[in-house]
Amino acid sequence: MEEKETGRLEAFSDGVFAVAITLLVLNIKIPGLDLLPGQLPNDAQLWSSLLNEWPMLAAYTTSFATIGVMWLNHHRLYTHIKRTNTILMLLNLLLLLVIVFIPVPTALVAEYFVRPDMHAAALLYSGTMVILAVCFNLLWRYASYHNRLFGKNVDIHAVKAISRQYWFGPLPYFLAFILALFNTPASLILNFFLALFFAIPPRLPRSLPEQSYQPSEPG
Amino acid sequence: MEEKETGRLEAFSDGVFAVAITLLVLNIKIPGLDLLPGQLPNDAQLWSSLLNEWPMLAAYTTSFATIGVMWLNHHRLYTHIKRTNTILMLLNLLLLLVIVFIPVPTALVAEYFVRPDMHAAALLYSGTMVILAVCFNLLWRYASYHNRLFGKNVDIHAVKAISRQYWFGPLPYFLAFILALFNTPASLILNFFLALFFAIPPRLPRSLPEQSYQPSEPG
Amino acid sequence: MEEKETGRLEAFSDGVFAVAITLLVLNIKIPGLDLLPGQLPNDAQLWSSLLNEWPMLAAYTTSFATIGVMWLNHHRLYTHIKRTNTILMLLNLLLLLVIVFIPVPTALVAEYFVRPDMHAAALLYSGTMVILAVCFNLLWRYASYHNRLFGKNVDIHAVKAISRQYWFGPLPYFLAFILALFNTPASLILNFFLALFFAIPPRLPRSLPEQSYQPSEPG
Amino acid sequence: MEEKETGRLEAFSDGVFAVAITLLVLNIKIPGLDLLPGQLPNDAQLWSSLLNEWPMLAAYTTSFATIGVMWLNHHRLYTHIKRTNTILMLLNLLLLLVIVFIPVPTALVAEYFVRPDMHAAALLYSGTMVILAVCFNLLWRYASYHNRLFGKNVDIHAVKAISRQYWFGPLPYFLAFILALFNTPASLILNFFLALFFAIPPRLPRSLPEQSYQPSEPG
Repeated sequence: MEEKETGRLEAFSDGVFAVAITLLVLNIKIPGLDLLPGQLPNDAQLWSSLLNEWPMLAAYTTSFATIGVMWLNHHRLYTHIKRTNTILMLLNLLLLLVIVFIPVPTALVAEYFVRPDMHAAALLYSGTMVILAVCFNLLWRYASYHNRLFGKNVDIHAVKAISRQYWFGPLPYFLAFILALFNTPASLILNFFLALFFAIPPRLPRSLPEQSYQPSEPG
Repeated sequence: MEEKETGRLEAFSDGVFAVAITLLVLNIKIPGLDLLPGQLPNDAQLWSSLLNEWPMLAAYTTSFATIGVMWLNHHRLYTHIKRTNTILMLLNLLLLLVIVFIPVPTALVAEYFVRPDMHAAALLYSGTMVILAVCFNLLWRYASYHNRLFGKNVDIHAVKAISRQYWFGPLPYFLAFILALFNTPASLILNFFLALFFAIPPRLPRSLPEQSYQPSEPG
Repeated sequence: MEEKETGRLEAFSDGVFAVAITLLVLNIKIPGLDLLPGQLPNDAQLWSSLLNEWPMLAAYTTSFATIGVMWLNHHRLYTHIKRTNTILMLLNLLLLLVIVFIPVPTALVAEYFVRPDMHAAALLYSGTMVILAVCFNLLWRYASYHNRLFGKNVDIHAVKAISRQYWFGPLPYFLAFILALFNTPASLILNFFLALFFAIPPRLPRSLPEQSYQPSEPG
Repeated sequence: MEEKETGRLEAFSDGVFAVAITLLVLNIKIPGLDLLPGQLPNDAQLWSSLLNEWPMLAAYTTSFATIGVMWLNHHRLYTHIKRTNTILMLLNLLLLLVIVFIPVPTALVAEYFVRPDMHAAALLYSGTMVILAVCFNLLWRYASYHNRLFGKNVDIHAVKAISRQYWFGPLPYFLAFILALFNTPASLILNFFLALFFAIPPRLPRSLPEQSYQPSEPG
C-alpha cells in the first residue's frame, strides 16, 4: 500500500474542526448558574429563560451542521490527496482560518432571523460562504493540477466529479450574497440548499461508454 | 489485516468528545482571581466560596462521567464498524451534536438538585438522553443492517449483543423522561442506572449450544 | 509487529490533555481589549496592568508544567500497555477527570503565593495531587497485574522500575498534604520536587547480576 | 519501513496547536447576542459595531497565521525526528508553552497598531518571538546532535538546510526586539518578514559538487 504523507495535516485539521464545532455551545448560557439555592427560578421562569435562548440554540445547531458538512468535504478531498508540500499546507491553513470564523456570522444570522428586513447578518454570512467556496476550490485545484498531489492509483472519475461539483461552487454562493442585498430569507434558503448539495457526494459522470464495467445508471 | 476506513471519523469524534468533556471545567470559577494581593479573602472565606461552587463541581463530574460513558460506547461500536459512507458520517455528526449539548442539561440538573419539587431540569436532561439513545440506535442500525459497514471477520455474537442492548435503550430512557414529570429524584436515579448499564459491555448470548467452543458461563 | 489496541484511548486522552493544558491561557486577560483606540492606556499603564497579571501567568506556567509531566507519565505507561478493556477505560477516564481539574487548584496556589500564612489553596492543591497519584497507581496496578494488558514482548525491567516509582508515589504526596496544614511554602516545595521526580524516567534496577548482558551502571 | 516513535508526541502537539489556533475566535464578540428580538440594532448600527471589532479580527488573523507557520515548522522538524526520549518531550512541552501564549502579545499588537508611538505591545510581541526562536533551536539542536533522534535513512542535506536556517533565527528576532524600543512599525515589519522566511522551506545547499545527481540550481 502506498504511504500517505498527509496524516499529520489531517490530524491537525481534525483538531481544529473539532474545537471549532464544539466552542459555540459555550454561548448557551445556563440560567441561574451563579445563584444561591434559595434564589433559583421556578419551573415556569426556567422554561421561559430557556426559550429565550432559542437564537443561540439555533446558531449552535446551524454552525454544527455547517462545519460538519465542511469537515465531510475536507475528508472527501483527502481520500484522494496523498502527498503534501508547503503550498498545500498554507492553502489548508487558509481554509481552516475561514472555517473557525463560521460561528460568528452564523450566530448573527440566527439572531437576526426574526428581522428579515435586516440585511447585514445575511450579507456577512453569504460573504463568508463565498470566501470558503473559493478556498476549497484553491486547495482542490492546486492538489489536482496534473494530479500533482494524488496517489498513483487515484480514482480519476471520482476526482473529475469533485472538480465539476466544486467548479460549480463559488458562483451560486456569490448569487446568494447578491440576493442578501434584496431578500434575506431567499438568500438563506439558497445557502441551505447549497450546503445540502455539498453534503451529498458528487455524482459520477453520467455516461462512461468507454469503461469496461457496465454502468449501472446510464442516464 | 483489513484496512480500516473510519480512522479520520474516529479521530474527529475523539477531538469533539475531548473538547466537550473538558469545557465544563471553565464554569468552575476560581474565587478572587481578579483581586489584588491585599484584597484576598482569608482561609475561612475561601473555603466558603469554594463550597458554594459545589453545584458546578457536581455538574462537571456528572458531565464528565456521562460523556465518558458515551465515548466508551462510541469506541465499542467502531471496533466493529470498519467502513464508512456519507450517511454514516452524517449520523455520526448528529450523535456528536447531542453529545456536545450534554453539559447544558447536566449543569441544570446539578443546580436544581436541591429543589426536587422542580421538574424542568430533569425533563430537559431525560429528554436529551432519549434523543441520544435514539441517535446511537440510528447509527448502529444503519451500520449493522445486513452487516453493511462491518469488516469481513466481524464478531457476529458481539454485534448481536450490542444490537440487543441498544434495542433496549430508548424505552427506559423514555420512561425516565415520563417519570421526571412526577418525581424528579426517581427519574435521575433511573438515568444513573441506565448510564451504568451502558458503561458495562453487553452480555454475550447466554446459550450457544451450536458453537464449537465450550461456553464458560452457560447460565 | 504486535497490534496495539489502545490507539483510540491514547488519541482521546491526548485530546483531553491538549485542551486542558491550553485552556488556562484564557484567564490571561488582554488589557484594554474592549477600549476604543482613543482610550488606550499608555505604555506605563499597560506595563503596570500586565505586571498585575503575574498570578495568572504563574498559574498558566505551573499548570502547563504539571499537566505536561502528567502527559509524559501517561505516555510512558502506554508504551507498555498494549491491550484494553472496559475497566482500563473507566480508570483512564477517572485519571483524566482529575487532570482536567488541575488548573483550578493551581490558579489558587499561584494567587495565594503572596500570602504564605493561608493554607486553603495549598491544601486543595496537595489534596488533588494525592488523588492523582492514587489514580495513576490504580491504572498501572490494574494493567500490570499478572501483565494483564501488556504485549508479549514487554520489557519486564522497565515495568518493574515504573511499579517501584509509582508505589512510592501517594505517600510523599500525602506528606505534602499534611505539611500544607502547617507550612504552605514547604508543602509547595515538596510538591515541586515530586513533580520533578515523576518527570524523569524511573531508574532501572541497580543490580542485575543474573542478567546475560553487562550492566553498564552496577552501582 | 522504520518505526516512528514520535506518533503520540505529534498527536498531542497537534491537539495543542489546534486548540491554541482556534481559541482566539472566542474574543470576537457577536454584537447584541444577549438582546431580545425587539432590541436588536439596525443594519447601520450592526455594521458599526462589527467594524469596531477590527482589532480583534486582525489579532485573530495574525495569531492564526503565526501559530500556523509554527505548526508548519514543527511538522517539518518531525519529518526527520523519528525517535523520542524524556528530554525531547520536555523541550517540546517548553515550545508548546510559548506557542499557546502567542495570542496574548498578538492581540496587544493588533490593538496598539493605531498608536505606533507606544512600544510595550511590540516589545512583548518581539520578546515572545525571540524566546520561541530559541525554543525551536533548542529542540532541533538536541534532536540533530550527532543525528541523535533521527532515523537511519535521514536526509542529511535537508537536515543541514534546516540547521542553517534555524541558526540564523534568534539573532534577527532579537534585532526586531531592540528595534521595538525605537520604532514600533519597523519592528513589526521585520517580524512579518521573518515569519514569511520561516514559512517557506529552507533552501538546500547551493553547491553539491560531490553529489552523484545533477544539481538543478547550481547558483
